[in-house]
Amino acid sequence: MDKLIITAALTGSLGMKEKTPHVPITPDEIAADALKCYKAGAAIVHVHARDPITQKSVHTAEIFDEISKKIKKLCPELIVQISTGGRAGLSLESRLEAVQINPEMASFTTGSINFPDHIYINSPELIERLAIEMQKRDIKPEVEIFDTGMIPTAMELCERGILKGPLYFNFIMGMKNIQPTNFNQLTLLLNSIPKESPWNISGIGKHQLYTTYLGICLGGNVRVGLEDNLYYSRGVLASNEQLVARAARLSREYGRDVATPEEARKILGM
Amino acid sequence: MDKLIITAALTGSLGMKEKTPHVPITPDEIAADALKCYKAGAAIVHVHARDPITQKSVHTAEIFDEISKKIKKLCPELIVQISTGGRAGLSLESRLEAVQINPEMASFTTGSINFPDHIYINSPELIERLAIEMQKRDIKPEVEIFDTGMIPTAMELCERGILKGPLYFNFIMGMKNIQPTNFNQLTLLLNSIPKESPWNISGIGKHQLYTTYLGICLGGNVRVGLEDNLYYSRGVLASNEQLVARAARLSREYGRDVATPEEARKILGM
Repeated sequence: MDKLIITAALTGSLGMKEKTPHVPITPDEIAADALKCYKAGAAIVHVHARDPITQKSVHTAEIFDEISKKIKKLCPELIVQISTGGRAGLSLESRLEAVQINPEMASFTTGSINFPDHIYINSPELIERLAIEMQKRDIKPEVEIFDTGMIPTAMELCERGILKGPLYFNFIMGMKNIQPTNFNQLTLLLNSIPKESPWNISGIGKHQLYTTYLGICLGGNVRVGLEDNLYYSRGVLASNEQLVARAARLSREYGRDVATPEEARKILGM
Repeated sequence: MDKLIITAALTGSLGMKEKTPHVPITPDEIAADALKCYKAGAAIVHVHARDPITQKSVHTAEIFDEISKKIKKLCPELIVQISTGGRAGLSLESRLEAVQINPEMASFTTGSINFPDHIYINSPELIERLAIEMQKRDIKPEVEIFDTGMIPTAMELCERGILKGPLYFNFIMGMKNIQPTNFNQLTLLLNSIPKESPWNISGIGKHQLYTTYLGICLGGNVRVGLEDNLYYSRGVLASNEQLVARAARLSREYGRDVATPEEARKILGM
């Protein structure tokens, strides 16, 4: 097994300070948390941006650039993965803003699906535009898989030469309306991707520890952090650093070392 | 999820003192190890007997009785599970000896299969005789599943009233010639047993840590110990106590408490 790549999903778009004091909102807070997570074992930080006043999700190139530079200043080695996800209604142009700052890595969802309270729209046009932009700018995509049908779509982009394989897949589980959080589903997913593809697993809410254990022992990689889960255990709020540290500790206990960003780049073919 | 039941497979029939000083051979050594494992979190000890001089596997009622009494003296609460497994060539009568001491629990394999270097024979006649004896003596069987076909055989004994459900299944993985050690296989197994059946997973050799993680996070139970695996990590010999302590620690870290023998009895319907 390769070393474990831990991705810290620091912020997301939903967790508010009223719910937990630990969620970083401003660029400075996000960068400070990124450094803590790096020290705890994260190789990648998955970055969303927020309006510092309203705490709402924003997608301008400017704020992504500011956050990215602040992270790089504190922690030059860390891999910054910018989210290209967007809330319903965001235009195609604003969905493309995140890649204009040339991040080293970006998330990339190859389909549309219902989230608990809205539709997460990724039109075929957006998907192809994003893929072309990422390949042109040498941005490594992390392919976000919310259900099985998203895998053939991603593979087809490779076959057409629009993306280069092996792709890095991230299976997201544990949210209403998306793929079920179970063993049969994961089996199906793992059988559907090429053998040479590295993969990651992300569990939402209480499922995060479940997916962490599976990712470690099955040879995958794991994403943890407050974007996906606010709690360390029932009723106990977590910090990003604590969630990363636990994943690192569990992996070492399993005999899998944790990958540095430099090692993660090699594993992912970056 | 119920609390985790840890079974310590203390001795088996293969590990010799020449290979590891930690394997208990004599009844006194086995009982002393049982106590250590109980203190470390085991609810059940799975017991084989050895000739104290040659270290070879023996199956007489006398030695099982001696071991059982020594364990009970040191640790009255612990569940003693006697092995009804036998090496090739053992007669039906000697395979039945283990149950004559009326252990609280006994292993019970519902099929024949190739082991790495011999055939593990459990004839339909033996299977039925063992089942009848166990039910008559109120011995809880642990149904040992080495491949998928063994499940319907066990279920059929329930349907015929020869055994009472829900059965407790133990899936053994990680040995040449038996079922493959993978996710698809485990999925199939879990889909094949009744929903109300508790289950356990046992990994042989280097697979033991893999199955421990899966058992913990999927809601199963785990068997660890020197019968199945001599090593704590690559090249580092383990004691039974260390292997049990690690399983207990990993389960608590996951938020699953470890079952006492009394709690295990309730979970297993004993």
